[in-house]
Amino acid sequence: MDTCRETEALPVTECWTRLASVPVGRLVFTERALPAVHPVNFLVHGRSVIIRTGPGTKLDAARRGDVVAFEADHIDPGSRTGWSVLVVGHAAVVGDVDRLVAVLDPQHRPWVRGRGIHVIEVCGERVTGRRLVLDRNPAA
Amino acid sequence: MDTCRETEALPVTECWTRLASVPVGRLVFTERALPAVHPVNFLVHGRSVIIRTGPGTKLDAARRGDVVAFEADHIDPGSRTGWSVLVVGHAAVVGDVDRLVAVLDPQHRPWVRGRGIHVIEVCGERVTGRRLVLDRNPAA
Repeated sequence: MDTCRETEALPVTECWTRLASVPVGRLVFTERALPAVHPVNFLVHGRSVIIRTGPGTKLDAARRGDVVAFEADHIDPGSRTGWSVLVVGHAAVVGDVDRLVAVLDPQHRPWVRGRGIHVIEVCGERVTGRRLVLDRNPAA
Repeated sequence: MDTCRETEALPVTECWTRLASVPVGRLVFTERALPAVHPVNFLVHGRSVIIRTGPGTKLDAARRGDVVAFEADHIDPGSRTGWSVLVVGHAAVVGDVDRLVAVLDPQHRPWVRGRGIHVIEVCGERVTGRRLVLDRNPAA
């Protein structure tokens, strides 16, 4: 009964596959007790979302080990169908060198012009996804 | 220094214009003490975001009068530039008939096949927007 109806839950493995198919998602966290949403480039590594960032509120949230959310979606305007995946888990700053090499392996994940000097990992502790059907809205 | 750099704040009036230019945004709210993000159709009415919905967690959040966030963005893959707008404010269920007619005026905002039997209004109490520049990421 929703104008963006959720039709079917996606299996967790498909959630990760779909996440890895898009370049940009949204990190949802708390900033001064208010919700904040920042679009970011990201990579999927195993069951984590990897984000490079500079100093700022995202890094602060990761340093605190906050529970954050990461969302990505895709809606095809032609068919008005799509999907949405939500990852909820603790954020952490990746400081260990071996872990940094693993998640940013340039052989497999070249990240040209990556400007983020810090790396945040969002552990996929709760991963849910849905197929969506968008109702027609000529006003949009 | 971010991989999805925010380059410039958008004036509030431009935030609303850009919001109104896209059909889908994301309602960010709290569900059982965890963050939830639901893509939704929406309309801009004045300085509010209007969402039709059925029974469920979004409606519950609005009935509680929760502070929620609404985010929309657009990134052009070619130029790797875009924008992101975030509206933060209290959610409410629109129950007053005159208000319903005003926000859903079919003369101006035909919403064909709208399936949401309830209408949620997110008051734009804090509206921020940024231009974005996405760093190249061939792994994506």
